[in-house]
Parts: sequence; structure tokens; C-alpha cells
Amino acid sequence: MTLKGRDIVNIGDLSLPEIDTILDTAKGMVKIARGEERSKILDGKILSSLFFEPSTRTRLSFESAMLRLGGGVITIAGQEGSSLIKGETLADTIRMADAFSDVVAIRHPREGAARLSATFSENPIINGGDGAGQHPTQTLLDLFTIREELGDIGDQHVTIVGDLRFGRTTHSLALALARMGTSMSFVAPKIIQMPEHIVNDVREMGVSVKITNDLKKEVDHSDVIYMTRIQKERFAEEEDYRKVAHAFKIDMDMLKDAKENMIIMHPLPRIDEIHPSVDPTPHAKYFIQAFNGVPTRMALLKLVLEGES
Amino acid sequence: MTLKGRDIVNIGDLSLPEIDTILDTAKGMVKIARGEERSKILDGKILSSLFFEPSTRTRLSFESAMLRLGGGVITIAGQEGSSLIKGETLADTIRMADAFSDVVAIRHPREGAARLSATFSENPIINGGDGAGQHPTQTLLDLFTIREELGDIGDQHVTIVGDLRFGRTTHSLALALARMGTSMSFVAPKIIQMPEHIVNDVREMGVSVKITNDLKKEVDHSDVIYMTRIQKERFAEEEDYRKVAHAFKIDMDMLKDAKENMIIMHPLPRIDEIHPSVDPTPHAKYFIQAFNGVPTRMALLKLVLEGES
Amino acid sequence: MTLKGRDIVNIGDLSLPEIDTILDTAKGMVKIARGEERSKILDGKILSSLFFEPSTRTRLSFESAMLRLGGGVITIAGQEGSSLIKGETLADTIRMADAFSDVVAIRHPREGAARLSATFSENPIINGGDGAGQHPTQTLLDLFTIREELGDIGDQHVTIVGDLRFGRTTHSLALALARMGTSMSFVAPKIIQMPEHIVNDVREMGVSVKITNDLKKEVDHSDVIYMTRIQKERFAEEEDYRKVAHAFKIDMDMLKDAKENMIIMHPLPRIDEIHPSVDPTPHAKYFIQAFNGVPTRMALLKLVLEGES
Repeated sequence: MTLKGRDIVNIGDLSLPEIDTILDTAKGMVKIARGEERSKILDGKILSSLFFEPSTRTRLSFESAMLRLGGGVITIAGQEGSSLIKGETLADTIRMADAFSDVVAIRHPREGAARLSATFSENPIINGGDGAGQHPTQTLLDLFTIREELGDIGDQHVTIVGDLRFGRTTHSLALALARMGTSMSFVAPKIIQMPEHIVNDVREMGVSVKITNDLKKEVDHSDVIYMTRIQKERFAEEEDYRKVAHAFKIDMDMLKDAKENMIIMHPLPRIDEIHPSVDPTPHAKYFIQAFNGVPTRMALLKLVLEGES
Repeated sequence: MTLKGRDIVNIGDLSLPEIDTILDTAKGMVKIARGEERSKILDGKILSSLFFEPSTRTRLSFESAMLRLGGGVITIAGQEGSSLIKGETLADTIRMADAFSDVVAIRHPREGAARLSATFSENPIINGGDGAGQHPTQTLLDLFTIREELGDIGDQHVTIVGDLRFGRTTHSLALALARMGTSMSFVAPKIIQMPEHIVNDVREMGVSVKITNDLKKEVDHSDVIYMTRIQKERFAEEEDYRKVAHAFKIDMDMLKDAKENMIIMHPLPRIDEIHPSVDPTPHAKYFIQAFNGVPTRMALLKLVLEGES
Repeated sequence: MTLKGRDIVNIGDLSLPEIDTILDTAKGMVKIARGEERSKILDGKILSSLFFEPSTRTRLSFESAMLRLGGGVITIAGQEGSSLIKGETLADTIRMADAFSDVVAIRHPREGAARLSATFSENPIINGGDGAGQHPTQTLLDLFTIREELGDIGDQHVTIVGDLRFGRTTHSLALALARMGTSMSFVAPKIIQMPEHIVNDVREMGVSVKITNDLKKEVDHSDVIYMTRIQKERFAEEEDYRKVAHAFKIDMDMLKDAKENMIIMHPLPRIDEIHPSVDPTPHAKYFIQAFNGVPTRMALLKLVLEGES
């Protein structure tokens, strides 16, 4: 079993040993990602960076990853992406990218688009997020960040906060953590709490989960606070939003009884879920986490193109 | 006579031996275009990819071609291109690209824009399509595809189908094939048949041409079926369009008496001119044809920058 | 004191010896910028090209500069830039670019954006123009052009023409020239003449300055005519604009008594300030000036990333 030639569509498609291989490989990429060492292992290879929906952070970190390994990039983004979606079938667009490059990173507004792309592509497809579907590279960089910062993943208590109902990032992360035996708390207003099927899946894996709306209590004993944005649009009345939103934000006051080594993560961009006064504290790891997108995606690009050795 | 430093504006500017040189060079580029071999022959060179009108397939294959040869790319596309057109003269924009790069690929909505660009540029200009004008790299990749798939070009019978009145691709192709002695059929609704001056030019070159609207009959004896899109907008009434459109589409039924080695081509994107059920048949060569855009453009970039040796 | 790691926000932050170092380094970059020699000194390094406001000429010359030195580029431009501005704080965007690359070139509609960016970035920030604020790389390439064409800067008489009130380019240039002892004339309609504080600053440096609206008279004795655009929008009535605009344009007639070695510069794009009939004359140096943006920016990228040696 090798990752060479594999499509990376869903974090659930990867076995735990495969995830380990990716994180180990990512570890070896950090110095190159920082520009401190030079690599040419993907010299001559081309990444198609297909962003049919804007996601600057994901796009740029894929492109940076490819360049850091000596490869080249061709890009579809912005308006051009939207009109392409209207102009021809996804199948034909993917076949084009397949003909012009060696690997495709795709972000698409439609759930299932990455899986569909994989059926039309001979080269590996890496899912950069498909609608309300999957976003496996986000989960991989989240796991990498926890492991880098805390040494292991299974022994931590991770509290996931925010829009847990619609936030695909949190579903993938919760399921991946559950497979590693990590206990969790889910903190959200009732209306956007974690869907029952995810909670059930997590519990079936023998992992303890707490469902709550009391952020402060969870901050005090957690090893990781994973923040996400709560979108106003989820609430029927802006009034309702304003009533609850404050209770799901992190500021200095919220942190006063936190464990010394507790880390705060966020997939970014943030609106106001984390107050900027928190940024200089040693808890704040969301900028490092964003950086970790580069070595993690370097690892994936290397592994699907060149294999493990 | 060398191609080094030449502008590639119109397929008619190239002699048959020059076209042969380009196709031979393209042949040698295939493995590099597939990422199986590595080239650095354009290391340090820069392509300006100026797309003042969207054409993702053409743009990406130019950029892939440049990267595969070790070169770099600077790009204008999307909104930025449109506002540049309004903001300054084409002459000043081209001089800018000229100052920042070694070769320019340009696509522009205005007929004659590439020729005009060539007069202001010291570096080679490659026309990526100018309005209702020329699109020479499309013709070259079409010729390359026929030669690769069928061994030669002059001995084939090529049937060109669709919007032959306004489709620049088909005019250039017909004239180039005529120079090689290839017999042709032109299949289209009367209102969008091949313009008389093209038909006359082709016949003057001593080539036999059939004008018809019976696609099935031509499919049965042709070596190449070259499909293009019929645009609804060409018809005064959508009703009129619907009446004729079906007769100019390829599906499995249409293919049942075709020659075994007959190949189907299409410049893409397609709408519904070719049914997806045709894609897996050995007749379908439109995806290979799209790929062939890369080695053909690699050959051109190499030849105009470095010459024949 | 070294330029390694420095932010280039304001031309005023650079000492005269530092400016000399940059211009000397730029001189050594010319052949590489022309594609005649190859460099790999920034191999493996990445430039973030962040254009939150369109400026194709500046963007492409930064990107060309980075590619000519063997580096890679990740780009934000067009629509994506505008929506990013709305979506998150500049601080968070800059931290992202910082994590994904080694140096940032930024253009932003808000004055002070580059300085602010520098406070959040560990890597060097190069200001590519911030609103009505600074545009130091334009000034550096202007100085480089004068030195290349005329041998030195301090001994010349430079006449700056056009919208001197709002044109940031002209303010930075005037102040930099004053530091070098260059005498100047400022030619503009009264309503958009050079702000008094700039005139005072220049005079305090002991430099002689003439304020006038008679372009012809200045053309006759100047060594450099630096043209800029006069925007219709500055005038309450289009009528008022039409009355004065003609007097601030260069055509062949205006040049008939000019010094033989007089050079005409313009930051481009131009509208109609310089008649195209002037382009082929030896006075016209605005296209060379645009090219000079590449070696100047190569010098800056090299110096802030690798230092002087």
C-alpha cells in the first residue's frame, strides 16, 4: 500500500498509519517550507490549482508548497473559475487539468465535486474543500499542529467551538480525533451544535464527548481549544445571534484559568472569535497552524507524486 | 530562414517546411509535456501570458508548456485584462510585456490585435486567438493530432462540422489542410456554412471539397470528424436553432458505420455536440488533442526563443 | 547597517548611501533582467505579490524580477484582493503571506497600509504603493533611469509636470532629488500644483525650485522632463480641465528647442500627456524606465533577502 498516485478526497479514506506517514513527512518539510533549506524533489512537475470558490489561504499554501519543492503551478481562480463552472462539465475541466499537469488541487462549491473529479482524472486529485463536504488537508494540518505543539494527539482533550452544525472542518476533525482516541468537548449554541450522527460516530469509537454551551468551563481543563467562526446568517434574527455570540469568543478574561500549555487553534480567517490581545500569548497557535498548511501540503504533494521513499 | 525571433500571428505566415519543423519539434516534446522527462532549455526565460479575453484551455496550456521547459510565467487574465484594455493603448501594454519577458502569448477580442502587437514588440509574439481573426496554435495542435493519430495529413479525408461561418478555428484549419492536399467535407446548416471565399481558396489549391448538411453520410467515409460548437446566438429564433442543432451532433448511433480508425476531434470546450457516451470509444481523440496543445506550444516557445538547433 | 531584512516602506527611510547601493546593485542586474544572463540567487525563495488595488505594471515587474533571480511567486490580485480586504484584518492577511513566503510586495488603497504591514511581518515588506502614501520602488527606478541615461543625478535640472498635488510619485521623487541636490521646476495648473509643505522641504535642503505653469519654457533648458497624468476628476468642471490640459502635454512642437540630451520620463500608464509621435525620438525614455523597474526591484529583492555581499 502506497500513497503514490492516490486521490486525497476524504480524511476517512486514509488509514491511521497513512496519516502518520503524512505527518512524519510533513515534519521533514518544515525547514524547506520556511525557506531555510532548498528542495528540488518535484522539479519539472506541475500542480493545477483549481479554485472554483475563493479560499486564498488554502490556494496560496498549496502553491507555496509546490514551489518550495521545485515544482511549477498553473492556476484557475476568481471570476475565471466561476465562468468555467458554467461553461463546461466538471469532467471536461478536470481532464484538461489532467492533461496539463501532474497533480490537481481542487476547491469547489459543490459537495462531492472532488470525488467526482477523481473518477475523471488519471493523476492524483487533492480535495481543497468541496462545499459542505470534505476538507482533508485542513484536518491533516490541524493534526500536525497538535502533534507538533503537544507531542501526541490521542492523550489530549480537544474542545471544538463555534458553528459545529455546518462547519465541515469540525466534522472531519472530530472524526479523525476520535479515531486517535482523543476525548472532546463540543461547545456551541444549541441551534448549531454538532450533528447527532457525528456525535454518535465519535461515541461508537469509544471516545468520551461532552456537549455543552459553557465555553469557560471547557477552556479551564482543555489541552486544545479549536475555535471556528459563527456566521450571523445561521440565525433567523440578528438579535438571536447577538445574544449568544459573545459567549463563544476567546479573550484574555476567558483564559485566566486555562492550563499553561493549552493551545488555541483556528482555521482562519477569523472575524472576532479571538480577540487580538490573545495573539501574543503562548496559547495562540493559529498563525503557526496556518504556516503548517505548507509542510503538510508539501508532504501530500510529495507522497502522491513520488511515494514514500 | 529560421523560426528564432519570429512572430506567430497567422498560420498562413508559416511555410509547409516550417510547419513540419514545428510538428517534428512537438513530437520530441511529448515525454516532457507528460512530466516523464525533464527539460531546462528555457531556464531563466519568461513568458507573458496576456489573456484580454477568457480562454482557460489556451492560457493554461501555454503556461504549462513554458513551465515544462524550465521557464517562468507572468500572467494577465480576467478583470485585470479588461480594465487594461480600457486604460492604455495596446501598444503601451505590449511594450510593457516586452520589457518584462522574453516572449508574449496574447489573446485579444479584437481582430488584428496580434499583428498589431507584433509591430510594437521586439520579442516574439504568439497569437493565442484574436477575435474573429486567427488562432494559429490551435491549427498547429490540430495538425499535430492528425499526424500523431493517423501517420500523415495529406492522405486523409477530413470532415469539419458546426459553425463554419464564424468559427475562426475552422477557417485556419481548412486553409492549412488544403495546402497539404487534404480533401474535405464541410457540414453545417446553410446559414452558418463555410464562407465562399474560404471554399474558393481551398478549391484553388486543387483540393476536392464537398459542401453538405448530411453529417451521417460524411461520418461513414471520413478519416477525421472535426466537431465545433453551434452557438444558439447565430440563429434569429431559438426555434430555428432547435430544428437543426440535433443533426450536427455526434452520438453512438451516428458512429455505427464509421471507419474503424476514424478519429473525432474538437477544440473544446464542448457543450453537447459530442455525447459523453462517445468519450470511451477509440474514435474520441479530443482529450489527447487538448493535451497536444502543450507539446505544440512547447515547440513554438522553444523555436521562437532558441531556434531550430 | 545592512539592507538585509529591511522593510522598504518609504524612500525617506533609505540613506543616500543605501540608495546608491540599490542603484549599483540594479546596474549589475540589467543583463539578467533582459534574459541575457541567468541567475539563481533567489532559488527556493518565494515572493508574495499582494495587489489589493490594480497596478499591472508594478505587479508584473515585481514578479518578473523574482523569476529572473530564480525565485517563485504567489499572487493575490483582482477581485480576490478586494474581497480579502473585506474579509479579515490586514494584520491576519499579512501574517498569512509571511507564513507562505520569504518577502512581500504589497499594494493597497489605504495610506499607511505598508507601514502597518511591516509591523506584523517578520519577513521584509516592500511597499508597491499605498493609497495617497508612498511608492518607493517607483522613485528608485526613476532615480536609476536618470543615472543610467545621464550619468549622475545631482547635476541635472529636472522638471516635474502634471498632477503634482495628488500624485504621490512626484512627491517622493521631488524629495529624493532634493536630497541629491538636483534643482527642479514644478509645472502644473495652479489648482494641482505641488503642495507647499513639499516645496518648503525641498527649499530647506538648499535646492532651487521654480513653480510655474509654462511647460515650454522649462522644456527648453531642462535635462529631464518628468511627465505625469492630469486626471479630469480633479477639476470641478470638465470645461476647466479642457482649458488647461493641452498646455501640459508633450508633442513634437513642444520639443523643438529642447536640449539634445534631454530625456522624457513618465511612470505610465499614460493617457495623452505624451503624443505617440514623440516615442521614436531619442528623448523618449519612458519605456526604458518601465524596463528599469525590473532590475531595480531585482536589486531590492536580492538586498532585503540576501544582503549586500
